[in-house]
Amino acid sequence: MTETPRANSIDQLAINTIRTLSMDAVEAAQSGHPGTPMALAPVIYTLWQQALRYDPGNVAWPDRDRFVLSAGHASMLLYSVLHLAGVKDSQGRPAITLDDIRHFRQVGSPCAGHPEYRHAAGIETTTGPLGQGCGNSVGMAIAARFLGQRYNRPEFTAFDYDVYALCSDGDMMEGVSSEAASIAGHLRLGNLCWMYDNNSISIEGSTSLAFSEDVGARFRAYGWHVEHLRDANDCDAIATALQRFRQDRSAPWLIVIDSHIAYGAPHKHDSASAHGEPLGESEVKLAKRFYGWPEDAKFLVPEGAREGFDAKLGERGRRLSADWNRGLNKYRQIYPDLARELDQMQAGEIPAGWDESLPEFPADAKGMATREASGKILNAIAPHYPWLLGGSGDLAPSTKTLIANGGDFEREQSGRNLHFGVREHGMGAITNGIALCHLRPYCATFLIFSDYMRPSIRLAAMMGLPVIYIFTHDSIGLGEDGPTHQPVEQLVGLRAIPGLVTIRPCDANEVREAWRFAIGSKRPTAFSFSRQTLPVLDRKLYAPASGLSRGAYVLADSANGAPDVILIGTGSEIALCLAAREMLASGRIRARVVSMPSWELFEEQDESYRDEVLPPGIRARVSVEAASPVGWDRYVGPDGARIAMNSFGASGPYQDVYRHFHFTVDHIVDTAKEQLARNKGG
Amino acid sequence: MTETPRANSIDQLAINTIRTLSMDAVEAAQSGHPGTPMALAPVIYTLWQQALRYDPGNVAWPDRDRFVLSAGHASMLLYSVLHLAGVKDSQGRPAITLDDIRHFRQVGSPCAGHPEYRHAAGIETTTGPLGQGCGNSVGMAIAARFLGQRYNRPEFTAFDYDVYALCSDGDMMEGVSSEAASIAGHLRLGNLCWMYDNNSISIEGSTSLAFSEDVGARFRAYGWHVEHLRDANDCDAIATALQRFRQDRSAPWLIVIDSHIAYGAPHKHDSASAHGEPLGESEVKLAKRFYGWPEDAKFLVPEGAREGFDAKLGERGRRLSADWNRGLNKYRQIYPDLARELDQMQAGEIPAGWDESLPEFPADAKGMATREASGKILNAIAPHYPWLLGGSGDLAPSTKTLIANGGDFEREQSGRNLHFGVREHGMGAITNGIALCHLRPYCATFLIFSDYMRPSIRLAAMMGLPVIYIFTHDSIGLGEDGPTHQPVEQLVGLRAIPGLVTIRPCDANEVREAWRFAIGSKRPTAFSFSRQTLPVLDRKLYAPASGLSRGAYVLADSANGAPDVILIGTGSEIALCLAAREMLASGRIRARVVSMPSWELFEEQDESYRDEVLPPGIRARVSVEAASPVGWDRYVGPDGARIAMNSFGASGPYQDVYRHFHFTVDHIVDTAKEQLARNKGG
Repeated sequence: MTETPRANSIDQLAINTIRTLSMDAVEAAQSGHPGTPMALAPVIYTLWQQALRYDPGNVAWPDRDRFVLSAGHASMLLYSVLHLAGVKDSQGRPAITLDDIRHFRQVGSPCAGHPEYRHAAGIETTTGPLGQGCGNSVGMAIAARFLGQRYNRPEFTAFDYDVYALCSDGDMMEGVSSEAASIAGHLRLGNLCWMYDNNSISIEGSTSLAFSEDVGARFRAYGWHVEHLRDANDCDAIATALQRFRQDRSAPWLIVIDSHIAYGAPHKHDSASAHGEPLGESEVKLAKRFYGWPEDAKFLVPEGAREGFDAKLGERGRRLSADWNRGLNKYRQIYPDLARELDQMQAGEIPAGWDESLPEFPADAKGMATREASGKILNAIAPHYPWLLGGSGDLAPSTKTLIANGGDFEREQSGRNLHFGVREHGMGAITNGIALCHLRPYCATFLIFSDYMRPSIRLAAMMGLPVIYIFTHDSIGLGEDGPTHQPVEQLVGLRAIPGLVTIRPCDANEVREAWRFAIGSKRPTAFSFSRQTLPVLDRKLYAPASGLSRGAYVLADSANGAPDVILIGTGSEIALCLAAREMLASGRIRARVVSMPSWELFEEQDESYRDEVLPPGIRARVSVEAASPVGWDRYVGPDGARIAMNSFGASGPYQDVYRHFHFTVDHIVDTAKEQLARNKGG
Repeated sequence: MTETPRANSIDQLAINTIRTLSMDAVEAAQSGHPGTPMALAPVIYTLWQQALRYDPGNVAWPDRDRFVLSAGHASMLLYSVLHLAGVKDSQGRPAITLDDIRHFRQVGSPCAGHPEYRHAAGIETTTGPLGQGCGNSVGMAIAARFLGQRYNRPEFTAFDYDVYALCSDGDMMEGVSSEAASIAGHLRLGNLCWMYDNNSISIEGSTSLAFSEDVGARFRAYGWHVEHLRDANDCDAIATALQRFRQDRSAPWLIVIDSHIAYGAPHKHDSASAHGEPLGESEVKLAKRFYGWPEDAKFLVPEGAREGFDAKLGERGRRLSADWNRGLNKYRQIYPDLARELDQMQAGEIPAGWDESLPEFPADAKGMATREASGKILNAIAPHYPWLLGGSGDLAPSTKTLIANGGDFEREQSGRNLHFGVREHGMGAITNGIALCHLRPYCATFLIFSDYMRPSIRLAAMMGLPVIYIFTHDSIGLGEDGPTHQPVEQLVGLRAIPGLVTIRPCDANEVREAWRFAIGSKRPTAFSFSRQTLPVLDRKLYAPASGLSRGAYVLADSANGAPDVILIGTGSEIALCLAAREMLASGRIRARVVSMPSWELFEEQDESYRDEVLPPGIRARVSVEAASPVGWDRYVGPDGARIAMNSFGASGPYQDVYRHFHFTVDHIVDTAKEQLARNKGG
């Protein structure tokens, strides 16, 4: 027999519903993290019920407040609230049903172990890898400022949303959140509020094992306002703090909230084992007893829990989003162009005519660095794509990523040029947050430093965010800076990320085509650009650069289309391949040169095209890329040769470094001849 | 005609020599970073001359103070000082000659663009990627504490060295240094001093563009002592601060030093362009005039500059290192075992008998997770290898990396179990610093979070540091935590790092062999271990696990040694391959199963062995690994099949997730049959 829960208030009832749903889901899955939902249910409930401007029936409302569960392991907190708040998807179906919660952590359920963007309406971002959600939230707050500056008008405040993130000890320890927090403080993002679950417990035991800094003082040093609440169960204090945050727009807020992990479970309370393990049946019962809950009830949502949310959060959200829509309708009449922009942006569309100023680069043997060409192309696109914005990790003069006349994004203005400082990882996480708000962001650094931000790139790929990564100085060709700065394994590392498209163009016109692809893509794209100048190929002699869209194409062929040997190259090594082809021709050897700027795009072509570019019958093949050989076997086959970097690089003028590592025309020619001999002999 | 430099003191003469050598070297290379050496010459000079306990003739002295140039782009600072101080290599040859400096940033010169460990004596670590040197310095300070606790005796203080790091704005912005600083503060490392070059200039312009936090307050929040010096030219103030640091052992010190980049160059002073470009000939002359230097002199080392260093730094260092050696000789008599340990450790040797307790795991169909086996093996090695130490990024219970009875490394004690907190990147950089002091460190986290520390892993590989990385939860086999936690592209990403050996063992006995390899290696090794249990193979039926040392071996073969098809697997997928082999055998198809725990080790075998394992004539091949397919073509060839992860994973019980992604015996069998049909047909 299921009794009725005891609760002093409808608030308490909802809070305990969140707790017990979380416990029951973890117990059913026999896997998950019950302790934090039990501790923080009052916090998340108060935030949603008292503060969040959110319409459960209209989750795409552009001006909604954002809630980011950076402590993604506490995913049941989010699923419980999405369920109780009655959040619906765009078809009006419940985002999370009770049945979904019953199938927590099962294949096919939207209730994955950690919140996954697009798995259910209302999940604002994928979290779990610690610190990433913190960074995302900074990006969302930056987006709010940018959107407000561009679209707000006296008649209508289109964007004024706040961003809340719930953070764990682990979030606070990760460097990526430190970087993001420093940027947020620098920019005085007054629309950002982090709520830090100070539970003093980590997986290895007490946080005192490894974490004794004064987090509040650190955030004050970043320029944040810091509040300290002593009791995660004190909903009034939480509500008051949130209200004061709403009134203060001068700085981001950190609210430190002391909590007890697994609050209410007599034997697990304040213990590390409550972090990532089910409580066990008997402990669940004891905790339910403590909450005044029927001990044997499972997945119980008592009457009042949903209704209470609807009466306050729901009512407020519906009113505000309806007001907003009314405002937008007026705005549409006064500012039709801006309104059209907004519609396009929210739909993920690209403005018509974005490519009308794209340059054609004339053939030029002296040429230009592909990073240089990228800068020109970016600046040809930017005027036609007003919500394209970005920046670099303190390398704009080198990565060529400034938008001329775009203005800076700083404390007092919200221009299009972001300055991330030497904080690549923060940059990556922030950029994801910007993309999640439907702006179109790019970010930039040297290719080698893509390593510093890989976890964020991975999440962009997982979420399918169309972020553009501009990575320059892409090989030993950067020269004197030496091995620490010369990428070797970075290209294959990026190519291996599912859902990311990596492109290494060989000249300025391929750069244009790379940008054309990236702008039109719904996925993230990583560019690999040279520091050194590369000839702009004469496309009267060679195939057009538009071949890039297929990943690889025959750039130069033997007259009869039946080559003896195929040279496959990318980026800066294409010019070497073309020169080798000439030299081979003088020895009556017919070589085809394949430009292969993107493995991923080539793999997406049908077999007939792939066989046309790389005919299976021609086994004398040489790949030439100043990077790791790993993966090239796919294209050169077991009999082919890979001219690649089998070690780290060296410091010197780049021509010397190229010679040192045998990236020379002569070596390509010799290797091609060996290939021919081997394949004739074999 | 070269005039004589004017200088008020021998100190000023040496300082200006450092400045002008740096300017001249950058000018000759037409590449490099002149501004910081010009600004910080007084700081580095004062540190070396007044404080550093360092014997230029004995750079391997184990108790020397360490100097880390975390701002590696200012490499000419270090090369100048190593030259002027007369630092010699183990053969007594000058570490850096004037000619080496003339060849700054040229192939073959030890004066690379950024300091490269092992390129010249006296370079304590490779720096350049920002924040890494900061992390290394924390590791070195941890090592000093560990070494002191283990080896110091009343009769002889074997280890009492200090660690100094010179840090730039960029170092301060990177998250990795934040993580490392938080750990250093937590541990109250009183032997650590960072000197922060507060020059207010970054590449994009003023640091005020992106960096307005109060760095000093942030470090106080970490538990550091902070000093602020207003003038990088005030050598007395610097000397006094360093003296006070030496007297205070209660906390790490941050000395913030306001400086002027390109000090002395009238047009470049305080400008971003002085960061990474040569000054130009005329500006060099003007700066030399400002310094009272002969304008036309190049690479001038006036009389007195070397001698002054020798009289103070050299004299002090020789005296202290001679004292130390005398002390060690006595110690050798009283504590011969400890002294022998020290000798072995410093020589990079491994204690005899380290492997005498290594377990043999009996065949067991139920089996154990490879992470579990690793924990047992680690604990079988640890008692015999006293300077093996390590820890995890707050995951010890999951990574199984605690040394039983090893004690914790904490504020009050220096045990063998380090607690890094959720700070993977800091962990990686710190671990490198520990290895640089000849201790043998391991570190651990989930394989997915290797992404958070890649820049440090790369540097371990570049430096050839024998760090052991214990990465667990190595595939979709971790189950419920879902896509954010399931590695896909991480394995190939690690395999592509030159100099790193990655090993993914298939059962407990291969784990033992993996450890055997790693302990004996001079290079870093990355382990990939399962969360889930794997059968312990019956080695009476299958080939011995010692085959792991060759990277790949025939685990199970057809009776006649002439298989129809080869199944190549790693780790948790080997059991599936073996079951598939059985099923194929029942259909009269002869399959060979190759266990391939390490690509890198297999590539190092001679061709005959490789052809023996993977006979070129057998083209029906299937690779099975629950990770990215990239790179497997090398082993399966153009006609082969790759059973791999072509997307991110999913959240669910791992058996369900395996089925969902077709990692099943049936699918392997079907694929093998297709291979056979294709190869017969072809």
